[in-house]
Amino acid sequence: MGNSFGELFRITTWGESHGAGVGVVVDGCPPRLALTEADIQPELDRRRPGQSRIVTQRQETDIVRILSGTFEGHTLGTPVAMLVANTDQRSEAYTEMATKFRPSHADFTYHAKFGIRAWPGGGRTSARETIGRVAAGAIAKKILREQFGVEILACVTQVKDIAAAVDLERLTLQQVESNIVRCPDGAVAKRMIALIERIRKAGDSVGGVVTCVARGVPPGWGEPVFDRLEADLGKAMLSLPASKGFEIGSGFAGTLLKGSEHNDVFRMRDGRVRTLTNRSGGVQGGISNGESIHFRVGFKPTATILQEQETVSVEGRNVKLKARGRHDPCVLPRAVPMVEAMAALVLVDHALRHRAQCGA
Amino acid sequence: MGNSFGELFRITTWGESHGAGVGVVVDGCPPRLALTEADIQPELDRRRPGQSRIVTQRQETDIVRILSGTFEGHTLGTPVAMLVANTDQRSEAYTEMATKFRPSHADFTYHAKFGIRAWPGGGRTSARETIGRVAAGAIAKKILREQFGVEILACVTQVKDIAAAVDLERLTLQQVESNIVRCPDGAVAKRMIALIERIRKAGDSVGGVVTCVARGVPPGWGEPVFDRLEADLGKAMLSLPASKGFEIGSGFAGTLLKGSEHNDVFRMRDGRVRTLTNRSGGVQGGISNGESIHFRVGFKPTATILQEQETVSVEGRNVKLKARGRHDPCVLPRAVPMVEAMAALVLVDHALRHRAQCGA
Amino acid sequence: MGNSFGELFRITTWGESHGAGVGVVVDGCPPRLALTEADIQPELDRRRPGQSRIVTQRQETDIVRILSGTFEGHTLGTPVAMLVANTDQRSEAYTEMATKFRPSHADFTYHAKFGIRAWPGGGRTSARETIGRVAAGAIAKKILREQFGVEILACVTQVKDIAAAVDLERLTLQQVESNIVRCPDGAVAKRMIALIERIRKAGDSVGGVVTCVARGVPPGWGEPVFDRLEADLGKAMLSLPASKGFEIGSGFAGTLLKGSEHNDVFRMRDGRVRTLTNRSGGVQGGISNGESIHFRVGFKPTATILQEQETVSVEGRNVKLKARGRHDPCVLPRAVPMVEAMAALVLVDHALRHRAQCGA
Amino acid sequence: MGNSFGELFRITTWGESHGAGVGVVVDGCPPRLALTEADIQPELDRRRPGQSRIVTQRQETDIVRILSGTFEGHTLGTPVAMLVANTDQRSEAYTEMATKFRPSHADFTYHAKFGIRAWPGGGRTSARETIGRVAAGAIAKKILREQFGVEILACVTQVKDIAAAVDLERLTLQQVESNIVRCPDGAVAKRMIALIERIRKAGDSVGGVVTCVARGVPPGWGEPVFDRLEADLGKAMLSLPASKGFEIGSGFAGTLLKGSEHNDVFRMRDGRVRTLTNRSGGVQGGISNGESIHFRVGFKPTATILQEQETVSVEGRNVKLKARGRHDPCVLPRAVPMVEAMAALVLVDHALRHRAQCGA
Repeated sequence: MGNSFGELFRITTWGESHGAGVGVVVDGCPPRLALTEADIQPELDRRRPGQSRIVTQRQETDIVRILSGTFEGHTLGTPVAMLVANTDQRSEAYTEMATKFRPSHADFTYHAKFGIRAWPGGGRTSARETIGRVAAGAIAKKILREQFGVEILACVTQVKDIAAAVDLERLTLQQVESNIVRCPDGAVAKRMIALIERIRKAGDSVGGVVTCVARGVPPGWGEPVFDRLEADLGKAMLSLPASKGFEIGSGFAGTLLKGSEHNDVFRMRDGRVRTLTNRSGGVQGGISNGESIHFRVGFKPTATILQEQETVSVEGRNVKLKARGRHDPCVLPRAVPMVEAMAALVLVDHALRHRAQCGA
Repeated sequence: MGNSFGELFRITTWGESHGAGVGVVVDGCPPRLALTEADIQPELDRRRPGQSRIVTQRQETDIVRILSGTFEGHTLGTPVAMLVANTDQRSEAYTEMATKFRPSHADFTYHAKFGIRAWPGGGRTSARETIGRVAAGAIAKKILREQFGVEILACVTQVKDIAAAVDLERLTLQQVESNIVRCPDGAVAKRMIALIERIRKAGDSVGGVVTCVARGVPPGWGEPVFDRLEADLGKAMLSLPASKGFEIGSGFAGTLLKGSEHNDVFRMRDGRVRTLTNRSGGVQGGISNGESIHFRVGFKPTATILQEQETVSVEGRNVKLKARGRHDPCVLPRAVPMVEAMAALVLVDHALRHRAQCGA
Repeated sequence: MGNSFGELFRITTWGESHGAGVGVVVDGCPPRLALTEADIQPELDRRRPGQSRIVTQRQETDIVRILSGTFEGHTLGTPVAMLVANTDQRSEAYTEMATKFRPSHADFTYHAKFGIRAWPGGGRTSARETIGRVAAGAIAKKILREQFGVEILACVTQVKDIAAAVDLERLTLQQVESNIVRCPDGAVAKRMIALIERIRKAGDSVGGVVTCVARGVPPGWGEPVFDRLEADLGKAMLSLPASKGFEIGSGFAGTLLKGSEHNDVFRMRDGRVRTLTNRSGGVQGGISNGESIHFRVGFKPTATILQEQETVSVEGRNVKLKARGRHDPCVLPRAVPMVEAMAALVLVDHALRHRAQCGA
Repeated sequence: MGNSFGELFRITTWGESHGAGVGVVVDGCPPRLALTEADIQPELDRRRPGQSRIVTQRQETDIVRILSGTFEGHTLGTPVAMLVANTDQRSEAYTEMATKFRPSHADFTYHAKFGIRAWPGGGRTSARETIGRVAAGAIAKKILREQFGVEILACVTQVKDIAAAVDLERLTLQQVESNIVRCPDGAVAKRMIALIERIRKAGDSVGGVVTCVARGVPPGWGEPVFDRLEADLGKAMLSLPASKGFEIGSGFAGTLLKGSEHNDVFRMRDGRVRTLTNRSGGVQGGISNGESIHFRVGFKPTATILQEQETVSVEGRNVKLKARGRHDPCVLPRAVPMVEAMAALVLVDHALRHRAQCGA
C-alpha cells in the first residue's frame, strides 16, 4: 500500500527500475481538457537521466504514452493511464548490490519489510519511480494554469554550502532552465556546477535545497485540521526520494523572530485583502490566503557513491562495498520538476476538494 | 473535509473553542486493550492551559470522558469516542476579533474559505482542537508501548535563539517533565523560561523547535512510495497549529555534507543489522531501519499578541487591532504532548498497515 | 474500522446500546446551511422505539444535541458532531445473552472477531447504532432538498406475504406517515398491522420490503466503474441491520424479460432527454439519467424472538435460550427513515463528487 | 473518480474499449507470493469474448502481461500492474452510436455527466473494463486459496425463466466449466443454451442470475457497521455492468418467513460453533460466521440488441436506431468469472483488514 496520492485528483504509480516499465494512473481528471503526450513529454525531459553532464549518464529517453482516458485529444473524465517503457537496463552493474546493502539506501529496509527485493537498478526504490509523478504532475499543472490561473515554479537554491537568493515573485521558467543546475542566478549556478563536477570525479555526492513557489492560488484552498495545505505539501515533498526536510514560508528561520516581527500585516490592495510581508508562505491556518505559496525542500547527498564503504551483506556479515554504475552525484537538478509535479498534484487536489464542499 | 487522520487507526476530531465541547472518534483500535480515562487524562494535563506561568492562563480543566468503545475497562474493537466539555469561555475578549482579522492567524482564511466564521475563541482554529489528537494519541502510545515495545518522547530543544543539545537515546519522561518549559537541560530551560516571561510581559510571543524520538521501532514500518514514514510524520507535524517546518534525521543540516560523510554505515551488532551513525533518523527509503526515529518540528511565534497591530476588517477596511484575552506567549511547552501524540498516531497506523500486508 | 461512510460528505458513527450514548460526526458539510436540532429531531422521532404498538416498547426519547460545526444556527463547514444520550437501559434483560449466542444475531460473530463483546443491549450491534445515520441523513436530506431540488421518500411495501403497490411518482410524506406501519396503502396497512400484532403476541417476528424513491436527481451523478450510484446505494442499504437484499429498478424481476421488453426507450420531453419507462430505476451505467431513482430493500425477520431456541454458549456447549426484553416484532416501520437517511447520504456524497470533477 | 476498489488490497482499473488497452494496478498485494501470467490468463480466458457460440463473437485473445510488482516469479509487495492490449477493434460498427444513445445503455449518462464520450466500442462502458477486475481477482483468489484456505465458485443458476437448483456445498469448478453456459446442471444448461441461441437469432437478449459461494471463510471477517461483508459484496456485485440486484443467504425469499422459521440454530460440531441451516448466507451482523458465504446476483438482459429501437440523438431529436456489431445475447456465462473475481477482491481485502486490527 501507499502507492496512491491525492483524494480527488488521485494518482497511483507503479513500476520497478528494471521491469517492463513504469507508469501512473490518474483518476479524477476533469473531462474535456485538451491533452496529448506533447503536454507530458517536456516535463519528463526535464526529469530524465543523461540530460546534462552533472546528472547520471544513463541514457533513458523516457518516452511517455497515454494509454487511456483521452479521446480525440481531450480527457474523458475516465482514468488517464500513462506508460514509460524501461530501456538501457544494465543489471550487471548491480550484481554486487544483490547481496550487499548500500549504506543509507533503501536496500536493507525493503529487504527487512518485504523479505524480497528487486535488486537490479534498485527496483521500486529507483528514482525512475518518480516518472509517474512527473507525468501526472504535468496534467495537474495544465489544469491549474488553464482553469485556475495558478503557476508553479521550482529551482535549485542551494547545493551543499553554495546558496542563491531568488526573487520568487519574478522567477520565470526561462531563468530556471537557463543552466543545467536549474539555479536562476547564473553566477551562483556556475559555482554549483563546478562543485558537482568536482564531487562527481571524486566518486562522491552532494545535496542541497529546492525552493518552490505557486503564484495565483486564490484564498480558500486547504482542508484543516489535518489536510492543511502545508501538511499535504510537506507530505508530498517528503515522499520524494532523498528529501529530509520541508519548511513553508519563514520555516525554521522564523523560529528566531518574535511574533511582533513575524506577523504578516494585512492591508487592502486593489480591493483585496493582502499581506505586506509573506512569512506565512501563502498559508494561514492551513488555508491559502491569496499570497504566493513558497516552501523549501532539503535533499540529502545521494546515498550511492562510488567509493568503497563498510556495510553488511544479506547474510548478515560485515563486508565492503564499492558501488558501480551510473548515479547522480547530485539529485537537485532533476528534483526540480519532481517538486513542481508534487506541488501541482497537491494544489489541484485541493482546488477540487474546495469546489466540492464550498461550491466554487 | 480533512478532519480525519490515519488509514487503519483512524481518528476524526471535531469541536470549536466556544461550542459544547471538543472530541474525537478513534476507529480501528485493537480489541481487548485495557483502557479507561486514567490512561488519557495525564496526557491532556500536559496539554492543558493554565498548567504553568509561561502558558496561557485560561483555566480549562479538560476532563475527558470515554463515551463508547470500551466495556468493563477494555476496548471492544468498536469506535472509541471521547469528549471534553468546554468551560471557562469568555467570548467578550474576542468581540473585536469578530470584525477584524488577526495578522498571521486563520481568521481571514476561514472567512475566505467558508464565508462564515465562529469568532469566539477562534472556533475551530483554537488550539483546543488538538485535545482530540492528544486523547487519541494517548491510546496510540499505549498500544505502541504494550504491544510493540515502542516509546515516544518529545521535548523543547529551542526557544527563539536559545537552544539545547539533547541525547535522544537516553532522554526520559522525567527529564522532560522536570521543568515547565519541557527542555531536559535544566540550565538551558531556566534561560528559556526567563525569556518567555520577558516576552510575555511585553505582550509579544516567541517560537522554537520541538525534537521528538521514537525508540524501539522495528525495521519494516512505512509504506512507500507516498506513505513513507517520514512523509506521514511530516504531514502529521505540519498539521499542528503554528508549525512551519519539519526535518528528519540530519534534515537541512545534512544538505551541507558529502555523501561519504552523510551515509550511515551498516554493521552487525548483537545479531542485528545496525548503523554506526543515525543521520537517516531511523528511516531509509521511507521505511524504518530499526534505529531510533528522530525529527524536529519548527513552530512560529504565536500569532495572537497583545500589541497593537495594523490589519483589515471583515468589511475590507484598514484598521488597527489590539487583541485581548489570555494567549500563549510561546506554544512550545504545550506542543510537546501534541507532537508525541501525532507521532504515536502515525506509528501505530503504520504498525497495523505493515501487519496487514506483511503479516507480522 | 468500517464505521465511516461517504467520501466527501463523510459520516463516522460511534456508540453502544448501553454506553454513555451514540453519535455521529459529519465531515464535509457545506458551510452556511441553516441547521439546528429542529432539523434533526423529527427524523429521529420517526426512528425511535416506543413510537407505536407495533414496534419495540422500549421508551427511548432519543433527544439529539448538536455539539459542534454550527454557529448562530448555520453550519461552519467544520465537522458537525451530534450526540444522543442513552436512557432506559435495562441490562438485566440481557444477562442470559451474556453467555449464550442468539441464533442469527451478531452475538457470535462479534465474539469470534473481537474476543470481547458488550452484551448489554447488544452493544454496537443494537439498532441504536442507526441513530447517527438518521441524524446525519437529516442533514443530507436538507441539503438535497434545498440546494439540489431532490426529494427522498421510502415506505413499507411488503410485510411477510402482504404486499402493496405504490405509485412512487406521486408518493407523499403524508401518505407514508398516515399509519404506524408506514405503508401508503391504507387498506393493506391495516392487514400488515394486524399481522404484526399477531406475530408479536406469538413471540415471533416478521420481515418485509422497504421501497425508496429519489425524485429530482439530475443526470450525471454516479462514479463508475466501482462507485456506481446503484453500487453505493446497495452498499448503504446492505449495511443496515437485518437487510438481506437490494434491487434497483426492475431488479430480479427484470431478469425474466427480454432486452426488447426491458429497455427504456428515450424520448425528448420538454426539451429534455427522458425515458418512457423506468426499468433502469433512474440509473444507467452507474450514473443517474434524470428519472426517479427507485429501489427495494429486503429485511429478514428480527433475529431476537421470545420463543425458546436451541443455541450454543460462550463456553461452547449446546444450550437453550429464551430471550427476554422488548424487541421489534418487525423492523420495517422503523427502517423507513433509516433507508431514507442512507439514500440521502449516498446522493449528497455523489452530488459533491460530481461537482468536484465536473464543476457543476 | 470511482475507479479504485478495496482498502488494503486495492485495485485501480483503467482503459477504454478502443484505446491502447485496458489494465489494472493492484496495491497491497502480500510479498513473496508465486505469481506469473500463467496464474492470471486462465481467468481471462473464461471471461473473453468469442469463447463459445452463445457469447459475443468478437475475437479478442486478451493476453495479459504483468508489468511490475514481481521479481523472479514472486510478488515484491509493490504494485502489480497488468496490461491487456486492445485488438480486433472495428469502430465502424459503432458510427451510428456516435450520434444516437442506445436505450438502457450508458451512452446518454456518460454524455450527460462528462460532456464527452468515447463512442467506439462504448469506451469505458464496454465490458472490456472488467478485464482488470478479473486479472486482479485471479491474484486475490490465489491468496485466498493458498494463505487462507478459501475457495470461491460461481455459476449460472437462471437464464430468463429457466432456473437450476445447485448444491453450493458440493459445487466444483469442473461442473461449472462442463458446459458453455456455466450452469452445473447439465440438463438445465442445455435448455438455457437453446434459449440463448434462439434469442440471439432474434437479435434480442436475455438476463438471469449468477449464484456464488465462498467456502472456508473463517469466522470474523467483515467490518461493521458500514463495511459489513454483505455490504461490500453487494457493492462489488452491483458495480458489475448490467447487474440490478443482490441478495445474500435467504435474500428476498427470507422476507416471507417468520423469525422462528428463519433463524439459523447454533450447534457445536467438531468443536466448532456451527449453524444447522444457512439462511444467513454465512454472514451475521456483517461478519462471517464460518459457514459458506453464498449470494445471488441478478443481471438484466443486455441493453444492446440488434432490433430497431426508438431513441434520441446527441442533438436532442427523436430518432430510430438499429445497433450493429457483435454483442452478447446474454452476459451470464461471461459474468461468472467476474462475480468470482469481485468476491475474491472483497474477501482478501477483509482478510487483511481483520488481520490489521485483530492480529490474526
